[in-house]
Amino acid sequence: MNKKGIDIISIGDEILIGQIVNTNSSWMADKLNSKALPINRIIAIADSKKAITEALIDSGNSAKLVLVTGGLGPTKDDITKKTVCELFGGKLIVNKEVEEHVRSFFIKRGRDLTKLNSDQALVPDNCVVIFNAQGTAPAMYFIKDETHYVFMPGVPFEMKGLMTSWVIPHFSSLCEVPYIAQKTVLTSGMGESFLAEKISQWENDLGDNTSLAYLPSPGKVRLRISVKSDKKELADSTLEKHIYDLHQIIPDLIYGYNNDTLEGIVGQLLTSNNSTIATAESCTGGLIAHKLTSIAGSSTYFIGGITAYNNSIKQAMLNIPESTIEEHGAVSEEVAKLMAKNVREIMGTDIGISTTGIAGPSGGSEDKPVGTVWIGFATKDTISAKKYLFGDQRERNTNWSVQTALNTIRKHFKSKHDDIVG
Amino acid sequence: MNKKGIDIISIGDEILIGQIVNTNSSWMADKLNSKALPINRIIAIADSKKAITEALIDSGNSAKLVLVTGGLGPTKDDITKKTVCELFGGKLIVNKEVEEHVRSFFIKRGRDLTKLNSDQALVPDNCVVIFNAQGTAPAMYFIKDETHYVFMPGVPFEMKGLMTSWVIPHFSSLCEVPYIAQKTVLTSGMGESFLAEKISQWENDLGDNTSLAYLPSPGKVRLRISVKSDKKELADSTLEKHIYDLHQIIPDLIYGYNNDTLEGIVGQLLTSNNSTIATAESCTGGLIAHKLTSIAGSSTYFIGGITAYNNSIKQAMLNIPESTIEEHGAVSEEVAKLMAKNVREIMGTDIGISTTGIAGPSGGSEDKPVGTVWIGFATKDTISAKKYLFGDQRERNTNWSVQTALNTIRKHFKSKHDDIVG
Repeated sequence: MNKKGIDIISIGDEILIGQIVNTNSSWMADKLNSKALPINRIIAIADSKKAITEALIDSGNSAKLVLVTGGLGPTKDDITKKTVCELFGGKLIVNKEVEEHVRSFFIKRGRDLTKLNSDQALVPDNCVVIFNAQGTAPAMYFIKDETHYVFMPGVPFEMKGLMTSWVIPHFSSLCEVPYIAQKTVLTSGMGESFLAEKISQWENDLGDNTSLAYLPSPGKVRLRISVKSDKKELADSTLEKHIYDLHQIIPDLIYGYNNDTLEGIVGQLLTSNNSTIATAESCTGGLIAHKLTSIAGSSTYFIGGITAYNNSIKQAMLNIPESTIEEHGAVSEEVAKLMAKNVREIMGTDIGISTTGIAGPSGGSEDKPVGTVWIGFATKDTISAKKYLFGDQRERNTNWSVQTALNTIRKHFKSKHDDIVG
Repeated sequence: MNKKGIDIISIGDEILIGQIVNTNSSWMADKLNSKALPINRIIAIADSKKAITEALIDSGNSAKLVLVTGGLGPTKDDITKKTVCELFGGKLIVNKEVEEHVRSFFIKRGRDLTKLNSDQALVPDNCVVIFNAQGTAPAMYFIKDETHYVFMPGVPFEMKGLMTSWVIPHFSSLCEVPYIAQKTVLTSGMGESFLAEKISQWENDLGDNTSLAYLPSPGKVRLRISVKSDKKELADSTLEKHIYDLHQIIPDLIYGYNNDTLEGIVGQLLTSNNSTIATAESCTGGLIAHKLTSIAGSSTYFIGGITAYNNSIKQAMLNIPESTIEEHGAVSEEVAKLMAKNVREIMGTDIGISTTGIAGPSGGSEDKPVGTVWIGFATKDTISAKKYLFGDQRERNTNWSVQTALNTIRKHFKSKHDDIVG
């Protein structure tokens, strides 16, 4: 029996019928991967005894560690504990410590304890109970036939607490693996096929121990580079060499690495340059402001924004002359430039960024089809605007516009830096 | 051999290492479920020959239909086609029709055809090629040992196009199932445990053929009710009876059904009441405006918004007196009320909605801990504000605030309606 790697099992009808997206699994996979713990499969199954039993048996046959989430909440759709008792032996008993924790959890929040909540103290008598500081249902740990099983609640922040405080430290040395050095290079400004052509020579020279994956999304292509080796130093240095070489080919397209976000990078650039910013948004409807403020500490550089959806607001709040809108249309270079320039002046910031476009599905014309977006940018020295033609889907267009606007801000600092060092 | 149901397999290292969330699967699951097509499992596996081979054999043993996404893109991380040829027999040949499609696809966009793109016309000679109108890589359809397999590209809008135009129509009668009547009731305004207590009598009376699942997320709890029966009419009428009864118990908490969104419902209410709205956001940083404008056609009711992150903008753009901020603090009932009142007047709308709070992680105090949020609401007749204490996580607090603000708008129309009919 050569068991290896990790299977992640998510229990929940809501995943199988598409009512929720399985973000728990991707979060877990990311954390495990960052510790070089290898994942075999991510599986989502129904809240049924049959599905749970089959999946546990199946994963138990091949995986060294099985991480299960879901099926431990306070309400009645949960049958996991009973199924686990039948499969692993054991019967449900009240765990006094958990019972006390549940009680104090509710007292602290000034709420009454319900019967549903107190039932969470029931656990199989043959498992190790793992304390859940974030919630009431504890995690349960079993070992059977050399496979380790951990059952966690499906509530994201409870699962995250348990993973961070217990699962990852406990299993960090469980799976023996060849060392993998891995880094994801984040690019913005060129589509997948064209990027692939541009770096094809570099890619061909990567060598057998290195693999490359393209991960495209609107406005971004991420390149994940993995180098496998028995020798950690060799893998690490090979990876850094590849990234150095790549940087020589596409210096302007690379905006960050791994879990960096454009809004995070832009936030760092604004902070380190002591710059402030304001937004004037039409077609992006406030999403640039939201992205910028999603970063903790953004209040030092993000001053404010105006979502000027209606043309009357472009006139009244952003001082765009009615005649300019009449002459050029609201979706135009002139309006994009004035929006960026004026919001900067009105809010007293160093930078103004603007969007005006046709997100769709309606509102397009032959001249300005759906997906036409102007992005304006202003500092005290420069005012510019650039036209983009994204696509025909509203949500995609919005996201694409926001990523491109954030990249415009990033490139401004990049070229400023080049001016100084150049 | 009693094969049944559908397995969804997503191929891609990027899912297994947590770099992307598997939204393709949840979209597919939702569409299949809406046609009462039953899903056994959703599985994510690596871009490796071994993983793909094992998963196809495993799912082929139990499922009637296997839907595979990913591994068909233009770049070199794709080995699916070769693996499938080995497993199902067949060899890769150029499909003339696909080649022509790829060529015209690029000509139409004024781009050069790359070698990587033209390779997409290579398909196994023993599959049925399904035309992909949205992109270049076609879908491939095999039948082996009574199991049907469809391989689709992983690019979301290409997969969606293929599912809608071909997969769902083609397989809509493949799987015989007892009829399931299913509806999800969407609630906002009460947490999971308390809601469960409030409706426990109703839940206990549901009967054996009915199942209930609680699906909580910040600011919302969805209740999925499923009634199974051999008789469609009986299942449908039982379901409607349950929902009618539930509505008697929690009329104010229910905001919609199935895939309704609060922003969609609010949009309908604004439209049908001929009302316009403006936003004044601090801690939510533009996300209310974004949610409202994510609805196609929102330009008829959403006029504009101000993200007043810095107090200077609250003063300059929203006319909040400096003395009010000094006396009560920016996070206060007074400021929330004035923000809603003034943005309504400035933008000339029927409704103004505002948020001011401490999203975290820093900025909290003993009096006003992280998670304290005031939501203000104004019409020409009323001005109100309500205080909430959400939690200690920035992203959660933002989302919770936005859902609560949207629910505040919804409840305004609800009570207006009650006043008229009451």
